[in-house]
Amino acid sequence: MTPARDSTVPDALGDDLRAAFDPRSIAIVGASDNADKLGGRVLQFLQRFGFRGGIYPINPTRAEVQGVKAYPAFDALPEVAELVVIAVPGDQAVQAVEQCGRHGSRVAVILSAGFGETDDAGRAQERRMVEIARRSGLRLIGPNSQGIANFANGAIGNFSTMFVETDPVDGPVAIVTQSGGSFAVPFGLLRGQGVGVRYANAIGNQCDVTVSELAIAAARDPQIKLLLLYMEGIPDANHLAAVGAIARERRLPVLVVKSGRTAAGQRASMSHTGSLATEDRVVDAFLEYHGLKRVNDLGDLAKAAELYLQGWRPEGRRLVVISNSGTACVLTADAATGVGLPINELTPETRAALGKVLPSFASTVNPVDITAALLSNSRLFGDILPIIAKDPGADIFLISVPVSGRGYDLEAFARDAAAFVKSTGKPVVMAVPQPKVAERFKQAGLPVFTLESQAVAALDQFVGLHEALENACEARALSPAVLVEKMPGGGTELVLNEADALALAGKHGVPVVPHRLCVSADQVAAAAVEFGGRVAVKGCTNAVTHKSDVGLVCLNVQGDAAARAAWDEVTAAAEKQSIRLDGVLVARMVSGRREFIVGAHRDPTFGPVLTVGDGGKYVEHLPDVQVLMGGSTQAEIRRAVQRLRVAPILAGVRGEPPMDVDALVTLVASVGRLMVDEPDVVSLDLNPVLVGALGEGCMALDGVVVKRTAT
Amino acid sequence: MTPARDSTVPDALGDDLRAAFDPRSIAIVGASDNADKLGGRVLQFLQRFGFRGGIYPINPTRAEVQGVKAYPAFDALPEVAELVVIAVPGDQAVQAVEQCGRHGSRVAVILSAGFGETDDAGRAQERRMVEIARRSGLRLIGPNSQGIANFANGAIGNFSTMFVETDPVDGPVAIVTQSGGSFAVPFGLLRGQGVGVRYANAIGNQCDVTVSELAIAAARDPQIKLLLLYMEGIPDANHLAAVGAIARERRLPVLVVKSGRTAAGQRASMSHTGSLATEDRVVDAFLEYHGLKRVNDLGDLAKAAELYLQGWRPEGRRLVVISNSGTACVLTADAATGVGLPINELTPETRAALGKVLPSFASTVNPVDITAALLSNSRLFGDILPIIAKDPGADIFLISVPVSGRGYDLEAFARDAAAFVKSTGKPVVMAVPQPKVAERFKQAGLPVFTLESQAVAALDQFVGLHEALENACEARALSPAVLVEKMPGGGTELVLNEADALALAGKHGVPVVPHRLCVSADQVAAAAVEFGGRVAVKGCTNAVTHKSDVGLVCLNVQGDAAARAAWDEVTAAAEKQSIRLDGVLVARMVSGRREFIVGAHRDPTFGPVLTVGDGGKYVEHLPDVQVLMGGSTQAEIRRAVQRLRVAPILAGVRGEPPMDVDALVTLVASVGRLMVDEPDVVSLDLNPVLVGALGEGCMALDGVVVKRTAT
Repeated sequence: MTPARDSTVPDALGDDLRAAFDPRSIAIVGASDNADKLGGRVLQFLQRFGFRGGIYPINPTRAEVQGVKAYPAFDALPEVAELVVIAVPGDQAVQAVEQCGRHGSRVAVILSAGFGETDDAGRAQERRMVEIARRSGLRLIGPNSQGIANFANGAIGNFSTMFVETDPVDGPVAIVTQSGGSFAVPFGLLRGQGVGVRYANAIGNQCDVTVSELAIAAARDPQIKLLLLYMEGIPDANHLAAVGAIARERRLPVLVVKSGRTAAGQRASMSHTGSLATEDRVVDAFLEYHGLKRVNDLGDLAKAAELYLQGWRPEGRRLVVISNSGTACVLTADAATGVGLPINELTPETRAALGKVLPSFASTVNPVDITAALLSNSRLFGDILPIIAKDPGADIFLISVPVSGRGYDLEAFARDAAAFVKSTGKPVVMAVPQPKVAERFKQAGLPVFTLESQAVAALDQFVGLHEALENACEARALSPAVLVEKMPGGGTELVLNEADALALAGKHGVPVVPHRLCVSADQVAAAAVEFGGRVAVKGCTNAVTHKSDVGLVCLNVQGDAAARAAWDEVTAAAEKQSIRLDGVLVARMVSGRREFIVGAHRDPTFGPVLTVGDGGKYVEHLPDVQVLMGGSTQAEIRRAVQRLRVAPILAGVRGEPPMDVDALVTLVASVGRLMVDEPDVVSLDLNPVLVGALGEGCMALDGVVVKRTAT
Repeated sequence: MTPARDSTVPDALGDDLRAAFDPRSIAIVGASDNADKLGGRVLQFLQRFGFRGGIYPINPTRAEVQGVKAYPAFDALPEVAELVVIAVPGDQAVQAVEQCGRHGSRVAVILSAGFGETDDAGRAQERRMVEIARRSGLRLIGPNSQGIANFANGAIGNFSTMFVETDPVDGPVAIVTQSGGSFAVPFGLLRGQGVGVRYANAIGNQCDVTVSELAIAAARDPQIKLLLLYMEGIPDANHLAAVGAIARERRLPVLVVKSGRTAAGQRASMSHTGSLATEDRVVDAFLEYHGLKRVNDLGDLAKAAELYLQGWRPEGRRLVVISNSGTACVLTADAATGVGLPINELTPETRAALGKVLPSFASTVNPVDITAALLSNSRLFGDILPIIAKDPGADIFLISVPVSGRGYDLEAFARDAAAFVKSTGKPVVMAVPQPKVAERFKQAGLPVFTLESQAVAALDQFVGLHEALENACEARALSPAVLVEKMPGGGTELVLNEADALALAGKHGVPVVPHRLCVSADQVAAAAVEFGGRVAVKGCTNAVTHKSDVGLVCLNVQGDAAARAAWDEVTAAAEKQSIRLDGVLVARMVSGRREFIVGAHRDPTFGPVLTVGDGGKYVEHLPDVQVLMGGSTQAEIRRAVQRLRVAPILAGVRGEPPMDVDALVTLVASVGRLMVDEPDVVSLDLNPVLVGALGEGCMALDGVVVKRTAT
């Protein structure tokens, strides 16, 4: 089984890694008779898992290792070893890289530790090894790596003890992680669920090949139905974006643990692999943008696997709960509501039909409480499921059966539940605390959890992934990944003054407050008269951020005389404090419904990032902000705005008119385009953006832009 | 083993339930030879678990049941059967209650279902049964109950299949639940951890005896170290408060699942047991007040049991993480920070000492990453633990050992870890994914979890419980439970006008805005002049809540003439809209730092409840409110204020002075006392309460009071 090549994603991405998964032959440097040594164990695995290509131990002093013919050097091999596993330390490993590169190998996996993860000398040695490999086009996986494995063809360049402790079988899941520990946990959990894993990659230091590159290769395999990633750093956002493109194309569920979520985690990560800590909310936004689902810990990678592997596509998140236990009904309703899975009413038709079957004291509302009547009538279960299956308001189902087995017809229950799943085609999970009872339902092919809370958590992740994936598909469909444009290096940063910042924003379609930049009292007076009503008069300079604190702002100025007085006041204040003014800005005083903030910056890893949030005095101390990728669509921006804490008042409360959210969304989208069209803009902050009532639009009243200029 | 009587809690509470746990003799109505029938199984359990008192099957047609001598009726018994287990349905059960009450039994457990949980007829029958029992002083447990059990003396009036499926042993845990399902889950999880359970009570309908009453009895047993409760309703807040009093006295960890947390859960609960849904945040406040720890689901009841049973008392929440895996360090730091367990720096002394032992590339910061160097030097683990144990900044420890076993000296690790625990006396948890490796540490007596996230979640619950318990102890020490005063029934509700509301608040020490109630233009003018500066002139009436909306408010009124004009304006507006005024209020216009809201109401179940929150226009739509019990101390109120979303700005940001939080706390405490001293007050709302800068105090500007008056 070779990874397929049926994707619209450019083949250049990840294609040179074919030999990592589908090598014609594998050489082992450091192969040993002792299967407790790294190279010895790999050789053992290659035989045990039936690799059919050439297996070539490289050993100058031995004729054979573990009964396999050994070769003194790469030159002596009967064919090119496409994949080389290196299990020797330090300089020997570097030499092996050089030799196999010259030999024509495509990929080398360095299992040995003691390189970049240790000290300066180790880092220098690792860099040297990469330079040597690049000369021959050899790709390096590792070092400090547990290795790579493909259980479809037995190409195992991986010494994981998990393959000794558990019984690996090929299956529809791929795992790609940095560390061995982050591989072992989801692998162990999946095997415990009886789920097979095809690709098992724990690649260590990422000196060359990254987690994302291997993920691309795994995601292209059409038999992979679930891709699990663990990464501490994201050195190559474009490759991860390509994973997203394949995921959207194939509707492939991809779960990502990106650790270092918190400051303490980032500190620990720095000391671990030296990964660059990226602001965590940008990582969230990046993954969501591409349709990849971020989860928090290694247990989360495996907890809903059985749901994904059923191939279900949930149509919504409306949950119907069915149980013979009132307690299970209450606990499930609490847990579901807690994660935002609504327990909606059943239709009157459904309730009437249930009422004919269930005893009078049972509940025909949702949750459906069959009550202990199930004990005396095992048919109840099978009678009500087909009725509920037809309810148009039901998207997903949770059936809780906290019975001990005695007195119940479990075979009938399992048969009825399986028939229900088949007839609805909709996602169904079960909560069954008794292991023996659970086993019956598992045998019927149902995803079974011990507790209602666990079943709800799995459903929530599953539904959330599909929502995010569909949203990303709608926003960017089958288009290949948008490559992240790295921030141009070098140059110096320049802060634009308010007039230039507003002009730049205005040029890109951002509505800005009507204003004039004036250089004389006459001009200020003329502008004030022209605008009519009240105006603000402000010293225009890039040297001061809080202008009102230093007397550079006069508000509510009206008429010729007051305008001239304001000019005097502002210019005198500037002169007194030796602040160079680029002029004096006269702006119309406007009112609206509420102040917001809109910003953008160019992330060094992920490119343009947008922020939108509630405004006011305490934006930094009581932040209410959403973070989005620069290319977000209006629909995505609107969803982000609706996630703000202030969202409940946007539609108008206490008799207020609704706010012009559409205008705000359009403004944010304009800022996103600005960041694409103006690659020199490092950051832009519009604060405040005054949003009016519906139909009144919105308007940036002030702005700060930082540009990078060539040195 | 009988429950002890060494508590300061009034003996009257729960003492008549001695016979439930420590009966001299037990009769079974409905005993059967068939152990799959309820009464048959109870008889079997009594023999299997070695009950040494009299066992009396009541059966008019049989000489013996399961080899035990049977009796035709209660009259025929050789002694009074203190506890009676009733396993016959409907009217037969009611007759049995009457008979054993007459006989002199103390407690009857009705296992049979078909009563209050079914329909109107069932509810009526249940009420009749309770009336009959009350006549003879018989206490009833159930019906629809799985029953009660005490594994210390084998007094098992419980038919739970769990005692067949698992192997119950006596131990330091008590479980009291409503439903059987909510008992089975924590019981099964605890037994899986090897933890013994003494009291196993699942009591069904609570027609008479409640979960809280049985919890009191269990909590008094000095050998019980952990008490687990599941309740859907709290019909008897005073009994639950008494559980809290014993918990505080004994520093007994008590975990409570009160389901129906959410609206959907409450609906499900209503249909399940008809429990009265109490506003959920009041339940939170009530449990916290009494030192009881609320958790969300049944799994939470058992997940940290091993920590509680170690008897540790954490001194704080500062976590030190130790692992040989960088990934484990990062994931633990993320999880710990996520739940508020800080990963603080180690002292320079500790770091220097670690630096001498660890290799140069290992991390001597917290998390301490020993790295894979552990593989080549198994002594590292034992070398660093004593150093870390001495660090004064470490309160709790998490040791993660994600190794497979091969190549490591696990015996030494387990020995070193156990010695570490002994030397620190501080809480230590382990995360060990490999089951075989985990077993070694479990054998050494350590609490072991599979994943770091699970270990962190357990630590968080454990530390949180002890914090809450210590806080409650500090606030209300060993005092017996404050009894909840139920809201007086009947009467009518009366809304006070603003002047009366402010007067009432002022009388109880609440600072209120200086004001005068005037009945003429002359009085208004005189008051305005007397106050000087600007005043507010408002129509005083209990008929309108939003006065400014109907023209009854003039702000910023200054001087004699303006005051007279305001009188005219307000009185004219009232007359035009036929609003009866009780006068016109003149109040000084005051300014402060921020508006808050303070309120109180009398909960029908829990008594006086306080709220304090951020103020402003959107208090209902963007709520930022904390809920507290009426008797809360100033320290408790201060902690609640610091949990508000606005807390970060209270100390003063952006150059602002800090707010007078002490004054706000004192005001809230005054409102709490008012609710005690004025039992007729149904609710009180002070909105806004203007809080000034530190030293300036705070002041209620407006108030609404609802009183209940005798009809």
